[in-house]
Amino acid sequence: RSSTIARSTFCRASSTTSLAPLDTFVRRHVGPRDHETKEMLSLLGFSSLDDLTKKNVPKAIQRQPMQMEQEKSEEQVLNELYGVLSKNKIFKSYIGMGYYGTVLPKVILRNLLENPGWYTSYTPYQAEISQGRLESLLNFQTLVTDLTKMDIANASLLDEGTAAAEAMNMAYGNAKKKKPVFYVSSAVHPQTIAVLKTRAGFVGGIQVVTFDENHNDVTKNLDRLSEACGVMVQYPDTYGRVTDYSAMSAAAKSAGAIFITASDLLALTLLKPPGEFGADIVLGSAQRLGVPMGYGGPHAAFFAVKDNLKRIMPGRLIGVSVDSNGKRAYRMSLQTREQHIRRETATSNICTAQALLANITAMYCVYHGPKGIKEIAERVNLCSRTVGSGLQEMGYKVDHADYFDTLLVHVPAGKMNQLKEEMKKREINLRYVSEDKVTVSLDESVSEKDIQELLNGFAAAVGKKAGTASDLAARAPAVDFGTLSRTSPYLTHPVFNVHHSETEMLRYLKKLENKDLSLANCMIPLGSCTMKLNATTEMIPVTWPQVGNLHPFAPLDQAEGYLSMFDSLSQSLKEITGFSKVSLQPNSGAQGEFAGLSVIRAYLNDNGGSHRNICLIPVSAHGTNPASAAMVGMKIVPVKSDNDGNVDVNDLKEKAEKHAKDLACLMITYPSTHGVFEEPIKDIVKIVHDNGGLVYMDGANMNSQVGLCSPGGIGADVCHLNLHKTFCIPHGGGGPGMGPIGVNDKLAPYLPGHPVVDMQRFGGENGRAIGPISASPFGSSSILPISHVYIQLMGGEGLKKATQMAILNANYMANRLKEHYSVLYHKEGLVAHEFILDIRPFSAHVTAEDVAKRLIDYGFHAPTMSWPIAGTLMVEPTESEPKAELDRFVDAMISIRQEIREVVEGRADLKNNVLSNAPHTAAVINSDEWNRPYSRKKAAYPLPGMEETKYWPPVGRLDNVYGDRNLVCTCPSVEEIYPFEHQ
Amino acid sequence: RSSTIARSTFCRASSTTSLAPLDTFVRRHVGPRDHETKEMLSLLGFSSLDDLTKKNVPKAIQRQPMQMEQEKSEEQVLNELYGVLSKNKIFKSYIGMGYYGTVLPKVILRNLLENPGWYTSYTPYQAEISQGRLESLLNFQTLVTDLTKMDIANASLLDEGTAAAEAMNMAYGNAKKKKPVFYVSSAVHPQTIAVLKTRAGFVGGIQVVTFDENHNDVTKNLDRLSEACGVMVQYPDTYGRVTDYSAMSAAAKSAGAIFITASDLLALTLLKPPGEFGADIVLGSAQRLGVPMGYGGPHAAFFAVKDNLKRIMPGRLIGVSVDSNGKRAYRMSLQTREQHIRRETATSNICTAQALLANITAMYCVYHGPKGIKEIAERVNLCSRTVGSGLQEMGYKVDHADYFDTLLVHVPAGKMNQLKEEMKKREINLRYVSEDKVTVSLDESVSEKDIQELLNGFAAAVGKKAGTASDLAARAPAVDFGTLSRTSPYLTHPVFNVHHSETEMLRYLKKLENKDLSLANCMIPLGSCTMKLNATTEMIPVTWPQVGNLHPFAPLDQAEGYLSMFDSLSQSLKEITGFSKVSLQPNSGAQGEFAGLSVIRAYLNDNGGSHRNICLIPVSAHGTNPASAAMVGMKIVPVKSDNDGNVDVNDLKEKAEKHAKDLACLMITYPSTHGVFEEPIKDIVKIVHDNGGLVYMDGANMNSQVGLCSPGGIGADVCHLNLHKTFCIPHGGGGPGMGPIGVNDKLAPYLPGHPVVDMQRFGGENGRAIGPISASPFGSSSILPISHVYIQLMGGEGLKKATQMAILNANYMANRLKEHYSVLYHKEGLVAHEFILDIRPFSAHVTAEDVAKRLIDYGFHAPTMSWPIAGTLMVEPTESEPKAELDRFVDAMISIRQEIREVVEGRADLKNNVLSNAPHTAAVINSDEWNRPYSRKKAAYPLPGMEETKYWPPVGRLDNVYGDRNLVCTCPSVEEIYPFEHQ
Ligand SMILES: Cc1ncc(COP(=O)(O)O)c(C=O)c1O
Ligand SMILES: Cc1ncc(COP(=O)(O)O)c(C=O)c1O
Ligand SMILES: O=C([O-])O
Repeated sequence: RSSTIARSTFCRASSTTSLAPLDTFVRRHVGPRDHETKEMLSLLGFSSLDDLTKKNVPKAIQRQPMQMEQEKSEEQVLNELYGVLSKNKIFKSYIGMGYYGTVLPKVILRNLLENPGWYTSYTPYQAEISQGRLESLLNFQTLVTDLTKMDIANASLLDEGTAAAEAMNMAYGNAKKKKPVFYVSSAVHPQTIAVLKTRAGFVGGIQVVTFDENHNDVTKNLDRLSEACGVMVQYPDTYGRVTDYSAMSAAAKSAGAIFITASDLLALTLLKPPGEFGADIVLGSAQRLGVPMGYGGPHAAFFAVKDNLKRIMPGRLIGVSVDSNGKRAYRMSLQTREQHIRRETATSNICTAQALLANITAMYCVYHGPKGIKEIAERVNLCSRTVGSGLQEMGYKVDHADYFDTLLVHVPAGKMNQLKEEMKKREINLRYVSEDKVTVSLDESVSEKDIQELLNGFAAAVGKKAGTASDLAARAPAVDFGTLSRTSPYLTHPVFNVHHSETEMLRYLKKLENKDLSLANCMIPLGSCTMKLNATTEMIPVTWPQVGNLHPFAPLDQAEGYLSMFDSLSQSLKEITGFSKVSLQPNSGAQGEFAGLSVIRAYLNDNGGSHRNICLIPVSAHGTNPASAAMVGMKIVPVKSDNDGNVDVNDLKEKAEKHAKDLACLMITYPSTHGVFEEPIKDIVKIVHDNGGLVYMDGANMNSQVGLCSPGGIGADVCHLNLHKTFCIPHGGGGPGMGPIGVNDKLAPYLPGHPVVDMQRFGGENGRAIGPISASPFGSSSILPISHVYIQLMGGEGLKKATQMAILNANYMANRLKEHYSVLYHKEGLVAHEFILDIRPFSAHVTAEDVAKRLIDYGFHAPTMSWPIAGTLMVEPTESEPKAELDRFVDAMISIRQEIREVVEGRADLKNNVLSNAPHTAAVINSDEWNRPYSRKKAAYPLPGMEETKYWPPVGRLDNVYGDRNLVCTCPSVEEIYPFEHQ
Repeated sequence: RSSTIARSTFCRASSTTSLAPLDTFVRRHVGPRDHETKEMLSLLGFSSLDDLTKKNVPKAIQRQPMQMEQEKSEEQVLNELYGVLSKNKIFKSYIGMGYYGTVLPKVILRNLLENPGWYTSYTPYQAEISQGRLESLLNFQTLVTDLTKMDIANASLLDEGTAAAEAMNMAYGNAKKKKPVFYVSSAVHPQTIAVLKTRAGFVGGIQVVTFDENHNDVTKNLDRLSEACGVMVQYPDTYGRVTDYSAMSAAAKSAGAIFITASDLLALTLLKPPGEFGADIVLGSAQRLGVPMGYGGPHAAFFAVKDNLKRIMPGRLIGVSVDSNGKRAYRMSLQTREQHIRRETATSNICTAQALLANITAMYCVYHGPKGIKEIAERVNLCSRTVGSGLQEMGYKVDHADYFDTLLVHVPAGKMNQLKEEMKKREINLRYVSEDKVTVSLDESVSEKDIQELLNGFAAAVGKKAGTASDLAARAPAVDFGTLSRTSPYLTHPVFNVHHSETEMLRYLKKLENKDLSLANCMIPLGSCTMKLNATTEMIPVTWPQVGNLHPFAPLDQAEGYLSMFDSLSQSLKEITGFSKVSLQPNSGAQGEFAGLSVIRAYLNDNGGSHRNICLIPVSAHGTNPASAAMVGMKIVPVKSDNDGNVDVNDLKEKAEKHAKDLACLMITYPSTHGVFEEPIKDIVKIVHDNGGLVYMDGANMNSQVGLCSPGGIGADVCHLNLHKTFCIPHGGGGPGMGPIGVNDKLAPYLPGHPVVDMQRFGGENGRAIGPISASPFGSSSILPISHVYIQLMGGEGLKKATQMAILNANYMANRLKEHYSVLYHKEGLVAHEFILDIRPFSAHVTAEDVAKRLIDYGFHAPTMSWPIAGTLMVEPTESEPKAELDRFVDAMISIRQEIREVVEGRADLKNNVLSNAPHTAAVINSDEWNRPYSRKKAAYPLPGMEETKYWPPVGRLDNVYGDRNLVCTCPSVEEIYPFEHQ
């Protein structure tokens, strides 16, 4: 046989002798192909990725290779993780406490939660390409105001505990910080009380005082009401009691305190809403409306206020406005930003929240409608009455005649252990409240069979026979909430009353999805946001039942799968950050900041530094930094930038020395928010340390560090990681996110604990750990598999390569664009993983906003606008964008540069040009009248090849109010918000 | 407490005392809400659904309530089915024989296979709204022609066995039916040979002759070559041998026989393609390129021919054409239809095929590209060489020096039982070929660990120790296919060379999805196609691993989950159809027809009726009916319609009596393809029976029967069910589908069997069962959960309600439209579940095609066009469409009627109007020049409220060839195709 020809041409026989799997991931995660990488490197004058990054990253901080496993195949990682997570034991949980079983309709599961068209989009700052999800978030706000009967609701907060803390801060601020007492009923969920205490403890000035509602005269118990800024209760309370709070709320009000009610949206379908008994703020978790428990999160918290408080409400508020054509259009209202600008200090650092989860809840209500939701509530209530009757027939005493879903049950003396055993045998979790009491919370997911099992368990514990569930249900006494019965309608808006068949629901979901741009459509080059690939393999475990169906307060031996994954993830994050311990509790970057600063605070307090309260923050810092510092009661001292945008080391030194006695810490982002690896970073750290302060590193830019350098290596003491940036958790249109913190040995003992769950190796030391900063012990546990899978798929080398490619992509784009725009800030021509394009030179003619909106006409999401510098665009391509997409974007920007030139040179009309009128809707382009000074084609198809798959924004430019221009990523820059000390 | 007010107003306390679950499905499946149903009924003058359908369905056939379970909740059904299917045991299968493990990239899994935007679309008859999936199918054809090196390929056929049968029919037809011998190598997969024999046996005239390739001189063995229409081999063959067929193909060719090669696309990346050694036809299964085994299907078969055979190739051919603007656009080529029209008799009845699966394979190749696919093949080959070396080291004899993936292994005497046991212990399936031989087929899914286990099993059987897999791999001898090595390139088109990162793949999938209309966007009112809801809960089990990962020839005790589900589904289908036995083997409606007619044929043969060969078919029948009849060698005698479109009973009687001696059967669709419940259906059946014939019922319109009447009750003997119509399997853009048949006691013994799998209770009687009609014993098993879940969710009453609502929706629309269009055929004003709108009255000015294309401008998929009557539109809304969507469609049709009037009355230009120019692309509407006699607005937004979510077709009207106008739903009507006997 002669195979010479064959061998020498196209198909050489394989030289591989390796059985290694082929479904490797690094090449799937990274955009450019090898030959493109070479081209790009050579354009930049480098011979290899190492060559590029060795020049870029200061020598002093370059790290050794990470000690991590190699890249694994997609099948292998999923199979292994499936095995690990199958160690979770899914008992039926009747624990309640803010976490309930629920049934997520499959049409929403598949077409929203499992659909990249929904989960990969960004916070709707660019309203024109976000009308779909804005509509859905508006639905969320509507259902919250309807059910609570409050005037206005946001969309959304991180969890019930932090929502309560926000309410407390509001109350305190509302009382001009003059009233220190914050009353909270002891029948509020314990984790909520604990979060309040953590917050109050650090901000200083607030005292959280619990009061006992069982006391003879509750209002008497509130003996310091005149000193109280707020009073908070839970309705129904943590033990299931439904109390009429009219008198208490009136008393609070007349004493000038804000009356706050934590509540349950499902219960409010049957109960008089807090808005009707005088609540000023109503908050809670919307989890049970469709969002799986997920071992604690992510879930959306809701937050609703009376009209008079709306200007100081935290979080994101979606509003209805009009577009440039006078058409109705949705947008994020700016008032929460105005609030930041107007007020002396921030009370809230909320940024990434839980948009995707709010959308699930909104869609759940759209699908069920008012009647459906009410039926669900009634069935839950029937379940609880059935159990109640059954228990009473067996001789158990059940507190409270009328309950919604939670029974407080007295266990006969000596029977508690037996009860626990019987329940365990049946794989049932109750809430064991005390030596002789348990609670049982029923929910939508409970079946008749479940109830029977539950009753059998109770019966066995006392040697009785349980009644039959269906019989008990048939003769269960009717509930009578009396004057606390709901009489007012809800969910009356048409959107909640038409999409009740699956076909309609599906089309509504698709209609909204297709109005928007997500990563499924195009690059989203938002600087500081790291919109990289959220790979399917990473997302798959999120909707596994063994991930979704675990109650966060289930005994730890039922969570072995989770804990084992936490161990592995923590281990990786430690290696990546160079720290010795990680807390997985903070459920956003900003929460991570608060947690990290709290840990610093606790450390200082414990080590003779309780007076240290100066926090140095460079002026270019993200707005959450100073907000978080304010939340731990620190005083912010800004540090200047030099002409190259770097931290002015002299200014830093001066201020550090000046405040040496009181210096608490520096907060710094690295590489800087200007997208540069600042050379003297080690010096900066040293200056702070030398003056007795600690260094907090904002890890938002970790995508430029992983594998090349590390916060720990740089000398920082603590750092948060936005897992929704560098570690692939999708942004979900504005959340979820996760913000774990890594700390060094010094700070490790102070990591947050939890009042309900013994956090073991995942929390600080007994006695030194700070209180919880989130409601759940491990934050948004159910999305942690995403980051875990990502790390496993990439391996140490892959992670480093991702960083290098992110830097290469940014430098390639900057290089192609630098002839056309000024690229602000670089180090000898090199940027890190993002860069800033200056639009200010054209400001007399064209604004950054014009460019951002014009990019929509080209089929792109705008870069980060006017942050950290007003009048600029910050571009971050990430490693996942293919070269062709980088080029498409660059070509669009070059074409726009040409359009700018036309305006600047007077060839195009100053007020009526393709930029000022952007974006152009199809309706505008198609209108029969056309009297613009440019052609339709130029407006709609400015570059060749756009016809077939042109993205049409459903609305034109939003009519925005003052302040918009300077805002990005919610949280405005330090300069705008904080009254700096005179420099 | 006073709760009187509360109770009496909005929120009455619940009166429910039932613990039944609330996630009930019937109300989700059905579009109109209860109050709308009432309105619609009252518009039609009925007081209830029963009232409507009792009037509609002939009294003589109305049935008793079905004996079925009640509706169950979505959670319950999924949980139960999960339990059932978990009884499947997923062994590692090395059985091969056309079914292999494969790795479906998750990004394709989630965004194509699990995405309603892909799976709910219809066959791309309306090219303008199908450009996305047409492009993907063209990719499929391209990869097939590339890998086989043939001139032209279709997209796609049902399975390898039926593809072989199509090839045989082609060969026979090509030889003008003068050459009876069809040679097939005995080294072709046994199920393929069996399918060939079944086909040949019924069509009559063809003799399938097997020949032994091991014979000294193969060509000598083909001693009847001069009588042969075709010669078929397998390459690599079923035992893994790779043979050079150049000589044989040359010999065949010179004898005037078609040379057919069954092959394996993955192997062809390394092997010389059949197109280069003279094959005329190459066919096979594309399964291993990304499609899970799914216990036998669905998978796409490929079929490629040399140019000279393209006019007689079966199946759907996608072609490149231009649109009305001269832009490139894709379409289904019409030549396969022309073929039908031109030829004397049909050789193929292929209609629904495997488009979705072809698209998965196409995307798999897009994702991997030429290099990736080759690496996969090389790794598979390395695995097989590793195993080969390992076995030889243990003393096993392995046949053939150079193999691709399959080893023929000699088992030492007396060791076979031991081997079987060792393998079973390790959960490994081999193919046990004979007393002393096994084959082992390796595939992409095999890991190093798997190989080690496999070797260990072989070692244990002979008391040896196995080598280490990785060592063996490292020193496995290189493969040398010599002159059979592949030298020609493949997948060189850019589409296979750019989408290799996950980001690019995702965007490509989304881009194509968003060009098209699917049920996720709007109603698809295709008459006869039953485009109803494909609910998510029904779809979820399809991608469970215990559904996807089972080899169809695995021992039955590993398939207990499947078999138990088959039992339940068969039981339901029996109750629904009124038959006594069901075969789940046919994998499309047309296959069901062929199976049913074959069973009739077998019964007649067995009962003294072998001469009976007349098949009566009403002229309105679907084209597959006569095609199928031709395939079992029957002679078609058409039956006229009367003026009302009903079967002309007198004509029927006359013909039945005239042919009484030779009457085989009647094929009839009920309700008729005209959408009417014909009154005398029982008389019709009786006439046929009285004249010695049997009745075949085409179950395409079962959506009008379920729960109201039944084929069995009507007296039919056999009927197929298009599960992809009435039973919710999505159409997948042109398949998959399933066409099980139900039969009465008479025919039950003849149901199809299978040569490899003992079909037990699911096949006919030993000795009487016909051969297999599909390659897999249970057809496309992995989509059967869809229909099973649907039935479980609906329960007996729910199924009946669905039927009634389908009828109500159709009648509501017909009623609203009847003032504007003539509604052809009805019974006292009532239609069944579909109705025909007559466009012929306007034919001098406007065609049905104009209306169909204009509907795209209104955002709709057209109804079935020009079938069963040319110049008409047949509308089938199904029960799942909400009233609002029915109204939106009716409003569009009324508005179009106005537009027609303008043309007819001369107010609009005859050749240049909104209808003739439809559909209008955005590029057309936006063009700077506009010189049409109507406005842009009128063209693009003919009704209010369309601006925001307007669907823009990516191309204008396709430039179609002759014949298109009369074709709908692929298969043209009887009149056009068949040369009827003179009447
Ligand atoms: C530099 C920087 N710091 C902090 C944050 C806040 O993180 P999160 O949105 O997760 O709260 C962001 C968010 O974009 C950021 O860019
Ligand atoms: C009346 C009728 N019969 C038969 C068929 C063929 O069924 P299939 O496409 O599943 O092969 C169809 C398909 O639409 C049909 O409408
Ligand atoms: O494809 C058809 O529905 O005929």
